[in-house]
Amino acid sequence: MITAKARAVDGPDKPFRAAEIERRDLDSHDVLIEIKFAGICHSDIHTAHGEWGPVNYPLVPGHEIAGIVTDVGPEVTKYKVGDRVGVGCMVDSCGDCENCRKGEEQYCLKGNIPTYAGVDKYGEPTQGGYSTHIVVTEGFVVKIPDNIELDAAAPLLCAGITTYSPLNHWGAGPGKKVAVVGLGGLGHMAVKIAHAMGAEVTVLSQSLKKKEDGLQFGASDYYATSDPETFTKLAGSFDLIINTVSASIDISAYLSLLTLDGTLVNVGAPAEPLAVNVFSLIGHRRSFAGSMIGGIRETQEMLDFCGKHNIVPQIEVISADEIDEAYKRVLTSDVKYRFVIDTSTI
Amino acid sequence: MITAKARAVDGPDKPFRAAEIERRDLDSHDVLIEIKFAGICHSDIHTAHGEWGPVNYPLVPGHEIAGIVTDVGPEVTKYKVGDRVGVGCMVDSCGDCENCRKGEEQYCLKGNIPTYAGVDKYGEPTQGGYSTHIVVTEGFVVKIPDNIELDAAAPLLCAGITTYSPLNHWGAGPGKKVAVVGLGGLGHMAVKIAHAMGAEVTVLSQSLKKKEDGLQFGASDYYATSDPETFTKLAGSFDLIINTVSASIDISAYLSLLTLDGTLVNVGAPAEPLAVNVFSLIGHRRSFAGSMIGGIRETQEMLDFCGKHNIVPQIEVISADEIDEAYKRVLTSDVKYRFVIDTSTI
Repeated sequence: MITAKARAVDGPDKPFRAAEIERRDLDSHDVLIEIKFAGICHSDIHTAHGEWGPVNYPLVPGHEIAGIVTDVGPEVTKYKVGDRVGVGCMVDSCGDCENCRKGEEQYCLKGNIPTYAGVDKYGEPTQGGYSTHIVVTEGFVVKIPDNIELDAAAPLLCAGITTYSPLNHWGAGPGKKVAVVGLGGLGHMAVKIAHAMGAEVTVLSQSLKKKEDGLQFGASDYYATSDPETFTKLAGSFDLIINTVSASIDISAYLSLLTLDGTLVNVGAPAEPLAVNVFSLIGHRRSFAGSMIGGIRETQEMLDFCGKHNIVPQIEVISADEIDEAYKRVLTSDVKYRFVIDTSTI
Repeated sequence: MITAKARAVDGPDKPFRAAEIERRDLDSHDVLIEIKFAGICHSDIHTAHGEWGPVNYPLVPGHEIAGIVTDVGPEVTKYKVGDRVGVGCMVDSCGDCENCRKGEEQYCLKGNIPTYAGVDKYGEPTQGGYSTHIVVTEGFVVKIPDNIELDAAAPLLCAGITTYSPLNHWGAGPGKKVAVVGLGGLGHMAVKIAHAMGAEVTVLSQSLKKKEDGLQFGASDYYATSDPETFTKLAGSFDLIINTVSASIDISAYLSLLTLDGTLVNVGAPAEPLAVNVFSLIGHRRSFAGSMIGGIRETQEMLDFCGKHNIVPQIEVISADEIDEAYKRVLTSDVKYRFVIDTSTI
């Protein structure tokens, strides 16, 4: 066993504390990664707070992991010691089902193994990236391009792929009008990536507070959704809308902003069902869809795309002692645009 | 003006009565059609009963029209006297907007002109097919294949195209698993068409009462949705689901029956919004979509397809005096599977 330092939480209302956790000895295809940075995703907070179902505490969250390979199992071929690598939201899947064979491991029919709060194939609970080390099978490790710093790379592993995948799948590119709902951790990545893909990007945010940022990230337009006129003015405008807001919104109003054959994709899900006025779908053959992270092949493609286009998230690097405070700030949207833990402070 | 006999209704609770209506004199591109048969669509009932908004009574419903050309305007090139033709749910559109230029006149950005309960470009109210004659611009008239009888052709103009279009758009064909929700006027056409396209078809109906019919129409499987086990057994099974039921159903349960990247298409819309559990979309990148009839080019394609594959609806031909009774029977689902009015009895 390999002992790693970590920051763990013991219950829904408990603060983070220093902990030691054990990582498995390297199996033939395993890679040992010295974690350098770990992003803080809103999912971490939902899970740590027990909002997404029962949690087997103590829990070490973190699925935006960037680090360096420090050891490899005997049959590893993809990585060698010293490689700059990342790990995202999942660390394994069955590899055998129809979806895994398509490279869509996130939709594994037996369920992918999440990076934390899951159970691995050895029957052990998985623990995430708020830690100094992690052991992951090479098939679920991706390579970080040389021109992306490790701290900035970390959020790409969730926020990056979660927005890249639907933009890619639904064909964002030249001649396409894309709207991004919400300018937070995911939204700001969606704007940067859609812009780099060549699409014309509009931000739909509650207020105009972050307008300057949005335009700088690559948006051509920025509208406040608190202004009802926005919905009148933009009716039938967009080929694709990426909704990064997990709160309950009037989804039918947003659907009415789509053009013929347009698609609105939710990348988050509110706990309560959303009320869909079916007329808003039928009127212009619109679709309301959902998308969850991306497959491993596509995650590598996203990293290479970001490397090529120099796309990185806006981050605020914090120490391990600041995690509780960072959680509070995420919950009040007081983050521009992603917290990243410097794991050397763990 | 051309005087036509018709059956009209004077208010939401009024019975049909014999009436005389006027059709415009032929404009340069107009076609005069002697209507032979007119199908009864559920939309006729909603509209006649004032359930879809205020109606300018007296109203002559009917948008499943089959007949013979008896006169043509001086510049008509597509049709000549004696041609067997059909008219569907719309009789005109702007012809100029982005969607019209794509041949998707049903989604005309200025609004298509419906066959009845609309206002034509001359400012006159449109009146539908429960009538002996109608005048329609040639661009909105389609040719009925020689091997389809006119009575059986009528329902293809709405029930046929409404189901053909989404099956065609979302690629029903060999290797695809298609489910049809509801085995009524639309559903039975969806089964026949999807089967002829080469898809493997399953019917999802409240009970097994019409199972024999469904299998005869081309379905391979038939399940009762009143049995909760149906949803467990069929989870993740279908590439495409065509929902022909306009009543409020548990749409999230049906979404869970879709495979990765599957789409559920509503071709009708309940008056109340449907509650969509977004997790059921995100879990397998599923889509919930809507579709409305089809364009004129696609309607002709559908008729030619039905001619080639000998696809016709199951109909019960009635006289004009039986319309009120037929409406009652439609509302209790006592129809196999479409009423068609013999307009010679008007």
